[in-house]
Amino acid sequence: MNPSSNKLLNDPVHGFIALRHPEFLEVLDHPYLQRLRRISQLGLSHLVYPGAVHNRFHHAVGCLHLMQSALDQLRAGGVEISDREFKGACFAILLHDVGHGPFSHALEHSLVRGVQHEEIGVLIMNDLNAHFGGLLDDAIDMFNDNYPRKFFHDLISSQLDMDRLDYLQRDSFFTGVTEGQIGSERIIKMLKVHKDRIVVEEKGIYSVEQFVMSRRLMYWQVYLHKTVIAAEWMMMGILERARELALGGCEIFATPALRPFLYEQLDRARILADPEILSNFCRLDDTDVLTAIKAWQHADDRVLSSLCDRLVNRKLFRIELRNEPFTQADIDERIQAVIAKNDVTAEEAAYFVVHDRIDNSAYSTAAHGINILFKSGEVRDVASASDHLNLNALSVPVEKHFLAYPKDLPRR
Amino acid sequence: MNPSSNKLLNDPVHGFIALRHPEFLEVLDHPYLQRLRRISQLGLSHLVYPGAVHNRFHHAVGCLHLMQSALDQLRAGGVEISDREFKGACFAILLHDVGHGPFSHALEHSLVRGVQHEEIGVLIMNDLNAHFGGLLDDAIDMFNDNYPRKFFHDLISSQLDMDRLDYLQRDSFFTGVTEGQIGSERIIKMLKVHKDRIVVEEKGIYSVEQFVMSRRLMYWQVYLHKTVIAAEWMMMGILERARELALGGCEIFATPALRPFLYEQLDRARILADPEILSNFCRLDDTDVLTAIKAWQHADDRVLSSLCDRLVNRKLFRIELRNEPFTQADIDERIQAVIAKNDVTAEEAAYFVVHDRIDNSAYSTAAHGINILFKSGEVRDVASASDHLNLNALSVPVEKHFLAYPKDLPRR
Amino acid sequence: MNPSSNKLLNDPVHGFIALRHPEFLEVLDHPYLQRLRRISQLGLSHLVYPGAVHNRFHHAVGCLHLMQSALDQLRAGGVEISDREFKGACFAILLHDVGHGPFSHALEHSLVRGVQHEEIGVLIMNDLNAHFGGLLDDAIDMFNDNYPRKFFHDLISSQLDMDRLDYLQRDSFFTGVTEGQIGSERIIKMLKVHKDRIVVEEKGIYSVEQFVMSRRLMYWQVYLHKTVIAAEWMMMGILERARELALGGCEIFATPALRPFLYEQLDRARILADPEILSNFCRLDDTDVLTAIKAWQHADDRVLSSLCDRLVNRKLFRIELRNEPFTQADIDERIQAVIAKNDVTAEEAAYFVVHDRIDNSAYSTAAHGINILFKSGEVRDVASASDHLNLNALSVPVEKHFLAYPKDLPRR
Amino acid sequence: MNPSSNKLLNDPVHGFIALRHPEFLEVLDHPYLQRLRRISQLGLSHLVYPGAVHNRFHHAVGCLHLMQSALDQLRAGGVEISDREFKGACFAILLHDVGHGPFSHALEHSLVRGVQHEEIGVLIMNDLNAHFGGLLDDAIDMFNDNYPRKFFHDLISSQLDMDRLDYLQRDSFFTGVTEGQIGSERIIKMLKVHKDRIVVEEKGIYSVEQFVMSRRLMYWQVYLHKTVIAAEWMMMGILERARELALGGCEIFATPALRPFLYEQLDRARILADPEILSNFCRLDDTDVLTAIKAWQHADDRVLSSLCDRLVNRKLFRIELRNEPFTQADIDERIQAVIAKNDVTAEEAAYFVVHDRIDNSAYSTAAHGINILFKSGEVRDVASASDHLNLNALSVPVEKHFLAYPKDLPRR
Repeated sequence: MNPSSNKLLNDPVHGFIALRHPEFLEVLDHPYLQRLRRISQLGLSHLVYPGAVHNRFHHAVGCLHLMQSALDQLRAGGVEISDREFKGACFAILLHDVGHGPFSHALEHSLVRGVQHEEIGVLIMNDLNAHFGGLLDDAIDMFNDNYPRKFFHDLISSQLDMDRLDYLQRDSFFTGVTEGQIGSERIIKMLKVHKDRIVVEEKGIYSVEQFVMSRRLMYWQVYLHKTVIAAEWMMMGILERARELALGGCEIFATPALRPFLYEQLDRARILADPEILSNFCRLDDTDVLTAIKAWQHADDRVLSSLCDRLVNRKLFRIELRNEPFTQADIDERIQAVIAKNDVTAEEAAYFVVHDRIDNSAYSTAAHGINILFKSGEVRDVASASDHLNLNALSVPVEKHFLAYPKDLPRR
Repeated sequence: MNPSSNKLLNDPVHGFIALRHPEFLEVLDHPYLQRLRRISQLGLSHLVYPGAVHNRFHHAVGCLHLMQSALDQLRAGGVEISDREFKGACFAILLHDVGHGPFSHALEHSLVRGVQHEEIGVLIMNDLNAHFGGLLDDAIDMFNDNYPRKFFHDLISSQLDMDRLDYLQRDSFFTGVTEGQIGSERIIKMLKVHKDRIVVEEKGIYSVEQFVMSRRLMYWQVYLHKTVIAAEWMMMGILERARELALGGCEIFATPALRPFLYEQLDRARILADPEILSNFCRLDDTDVLTAIKAWQHADDRVLSSLCDRLVNRKLFRIELRNEPFTQADIDERIQAVIAKNDVTAEEAAYFVVHDRIDNSAYSTAAHGINILFKSGEVRDVASASDHLNLNALSVPVEKHFLAYPKDLPRR
Repeated sequence: MNPSSNKLLNDPVHGFIALRHPEFLEVLDHPYLQRLRRISQLGLSHLVYPGAVHNRFHHAVGCLHLMQSALDQLRAGGVEISDREFKGACFAILLHDVGHGPFSHALEHSLVRGVQHEEIGVLIMNDLNAHFGGLLDDAIDMFNDNYPRKFFHDLISSQLDMDRLDYLQRDSFFTGVTEGQIGSERIIKMLKVHKDRIVVEEKGIYSVEQFVMSRRLMYWQVYLHKTVIAAEWMMMGILERARELALGGCEIFATPALRPFLYEQLDRARILADPEILSNFCRLDDTDVLTAIKAWQHADDRVLSSLCDRLVNRKLFRIELRNEPFTQADIDERIQAVIAKNDVTAEEAAYFVVHDRIDNSAYSTAAHGINILFKSGEVRDVASASDHLNLNALSVPVEKHFLAYPKDLPRR
Repeated sequence: MNPSSNKLLNDPVHGFIALRHPEFLEVLDHPYLQRLRRISQLGLSHLVYPGAVHNRFHHAVGCLHLMQSALDQLRAGGVEISDREFKGACFAILLHDVGHGPFSHALEHSLVRGVQHEEIGVLIMNDLNAHFGGLLDDAIDMFNDNYPRKFFHDLISSQLDMDRLDYLQRDSFFTGVTEGQIGSERIIKMLKVHKDRIVVEEKGIYSVEQFVMSRRLMYWQVYLHKTVIAAEWMMMGILERARELALGGCEIFATPALRPFLYEQLDRARILADPEILSNFCRLDDTDVLTAIKAWQHADDRVLSSLCDRLVNRKLFRIELRNEPFTQADIDERIQAVIAKNDVTAEEAAYFVVHDRIDNSAYSTAAHGINILFKSGEVRDVASASDHLNLNALSVPVEKHFLAYPKDLPRR
């Protein structure tokens, strides 16, 4: 491929995206990445924000674009980056989410309990690396922070990485929550490498502050929107119940890709060790879960059928959110209400009363933070560099508690 | 619901959308409309434009928004519109696409051959009307052009209806094809009713021209993009082959919603007359088709498995597009090439060589056109009203022919 | 004018703006408002942000648009607003900046020292009211907070008034400082009247926070940009020097509109009392000041000519900004440096060394703040209502000090 | 200046603009370019489109940005471009409009009659080149099409040059005429050099068509908007009358920069030959003309004062536009009407009745057109390359005629 025949992709968020090396297209065309087309970025958020139906494939391409821009910018600023490193960083960001399953959050609490998508991601990257004959060696090192030049890892995974820059801008775009918009292009124009780490020029401090603020806003408005949480916990209950029934010998509908995750004894160790399971995982996507839930509306088990009917037809649980935990008495009262209304057992009723805590820290000073490089040569964490705003306040995790139950119950 | 508690939806295209009457939310919450969340607006176009994953539910809400704006605008211009009529027109546009199945174009050529989505739509509307106790009487009359005041039908279905205004703007937004952008708000500001029909004020003539031009551009750039056509025809072949196998007694995977469309003898008459079939249709969506195609990658039938593997993993057919039809010799040569390469029968090979014609007329003067109202009181079709551009040229349908076949064949 | 013939204006910020009453156009067409076309909104900021050349006329029209939307929204929410009140509030916001002179900040420190533009504004409004036969009675009452229903004044002048909503969005648009963007439409959709005051619905709290944050960001990035401050203080020095020369009997160039402000003895009392002066003021705009400064590049007085040459040809002062005040020694050192380099007197040198303090409080809890109405019925100031962000921090005024002097001096 | 310290400018149209070489800033800072800050891009169009107040300086910077992008794109496509050529092309586009005076169109019909801004531009460029010691040698050759590699001139001045790409996008942005939006970034991504000329890749054909269509639309909606034409011709009349009075010995107000253009005997030969005149020209900008017109509202000559009062206070002429020329009888009738109403001489009345023709050809096939490079290697003019639209129709100049006169006359 000569340089003029770069593949161009149309992205409504970033405009034209040029794939700068033909290998980028090869990797994108692999079934493991094509699978991300069928995994939505924001899970069930589209129930609240109807535009939020973008998928992880699109996000991966957007991240690639930002990585290319950032590396160009650093090179223009005098940082030596070899072509091999350029490609390595680009592959790493392309692949950073490849371990995500459908509705990751719900899945990680049910079918692949206790396994983080990052762990699966590393397994998949190794598989791909074997397939591509070592092409991804550097990418994997950079991803795992084993590459000697640390700033590459900063671009891939840090509090100001290309992942966050893309998803904040993209999620804001597709949800229509315009307050969350960030200027990722502007921030990238102010990146520098200082002592082998990514820093932001002094004049970018307001852009960084706005980025942190936007992230917090997107958490409360979108990622932790209470209706979305209710829907996600309903889906978790559905998958748990289905697995319980399947392991109990009950025959329920499942697509071929979903079946092993319902019917086989899986624990963390086996998921991570058995190549068959990994291979199954790489076939699983949103459509498997969604067709199952549609089919289970007509299941014999009334817990399963009722939960599925409610989720498919948007009869979502009512959810209460507050700063203090709910008491056991609060929960028991709701379970009794479910029993009274639906003639179910207490065990069954528990599927209809969900409670947990959620938290959000927009910025963390504990981890390696976002560093500002002053003209004086001094480097300071943005939380302390900002005269005007106590960003430290944002680094305190905010914790909330929720209790959710069917809307057809009498109000408490 | 008091007027201040209008439900607000966030739409990245139109901004906040207020549902102006509580009944609008009730209808939107019905499972038949919720189903549209799982039917993508542009089918397989996301294979070319990764952002184009918006669904028909979102489009329906956008149309509602434009209808509300248009009716407000007409009222402000002195047209008397009762609240009942306001609701009727809004219901009609909300429901105008309710008959769409998954991947409509492919479906109408395979599983529900010969049945238009509009016909199914009318059956579904009648069903909903019964459910809602006659709430949709006016809407159905307006949709079918049986309502006495004809301009309502113009807003629902004409060459400048709210459907087109929304989908052009929305498809341009999600694909990122910015040349297709139209200012639907601007056009609506210039709508008037003249002799009971919708007309556009003289000063809106450039906006209307730009609308016609954008529509043509979106046809060639998006709706008739050759890669998308190749993918759609692959899907048609898949569904046809699957149905052929199913009717031949072969057991292949199907979700409960998809099964009857594969295994039952369906003709146009039965589809339109059997309430069971209609009910099945209302359960069918993109996820049923996609999980089936994923599962069929592993089918015993090698035509089916090969086509599915290619579609799922984006190994799409090469497609040639030209102004003249392809000859039988062209086609036969390609079929022989398939046979030579894959050791299949001629009948099987035919699934891998598809050809047809596509056409596009951006504007039609034959049907009721877009009328411009001049300050002089004169009304003229925009094609003749425009001094500067021969819009008549755009009303000549442009016809193209294509031939598509696997990329792994030798080039012709 | 019948309702359908609303005058439409194209605004790149808000889209089409409809003037809803013919009187709005009449007032806009008055020479006192047409004058605002020649008074830029952001003075010399275009020296840093080349797009920031929008004028106060355009801002007035934008405010009118937002006022119309807000009143529509309140009416839709059940607040009774008579047509007369609708017009009154619209006139008031149209006229709220009518007392601005060219480069207001510089002017208020030199030619019309000690007179606020609001004071002149009231005089001009009274004049216009006489001209329009009492049409503006309500508007003036609302502006002066003498109208019984207090929420109208809130819309015209408060911490969340239509003025701020327009100028933040508009200034962000024209400067290209995208981090400052606010969704004024979104905020307006959440306004309510509660106990006769404007409040924001609970779910609008994030939008309000973002508005406060954007305001602070625009202050530091734009309104108090140090290069702009340097330029403004240079202009102040120019006007002071010119007046000093003029009052000393020196003949310098002046347009007819500018001449009396240079050559006549004006104090606050006379400016506010003498209708002749007011009438002159209404002829004065940016072009008078700019042509004078261009001409004065060739003045005999070398202080005046040097300052003018520097400002016109963008040889702006270097400016140092810090948290602590500069000492008299700092200042004296710079003055000596000017003398050494330019062979001027100490008095003359003082024109080349300017220092002062600037401050910025993004939000004030002291004044009537922005109130959030909770679903519980409770009303709280946003600074205390926000769990997540210490907006109180933003209400502490931040003070900075600057020292500016020619770039051709040796560095300190 | 090291590469990382590129000067960044905020442009609301293109985002951040990096000045890639320090010399670019030096040239931009020269008084001849700073003067362009005070010359509006669209003259009096802001009377119709209040946002259209952007200036030629901003446009020059935008052109520089597009040129930098286009050269990057060509280099990435394998075209060898030396740093010296890069700078040359950038200087040329920065300077392409440096010969514009205030309200160019009006000026070229009055004060500098018969001298095109391009001619003055070349004189100024030569002056600047002397000042900068030959830095602009290549730029001037490229501008004058004397540089051997012709494609540089295409980028500077052709039917698809950086000038047009910037001004269409910028004018659409500031006027708010969204139908005129073009994707200049998208077009630039498809530029190639073929046989030493700029061509557009085949897949860019729709973008080019949309560009031609947008240009035509902007002509009719903005550049030839009838109210703007009326205002421009009023300004021409004002300047002609002022000059007539001045040459007749009458003392009228003029700023120092404007005075010689009113009081001296200037013809084409002298303007082009006399360095003093050129130097005066380089001091003249919008503010000189505007302060004069404001002052002349109070002139003794009633033709001058009346015209100025009308223009300043937006009492613009009524204008009739039609396809056929107006007859002498039409014109005489209006002149008589002016005489009847205002008690003026026929000669004076003629200032109040203006008529002329305007024309617009969106695309010209006569000159070197926009060429499309097909995959087959064939190159064709876009007008014949487009199957779907008769762009030839757009290459026929459309001619209209207008007649304008005071609104206070009785209607014809």
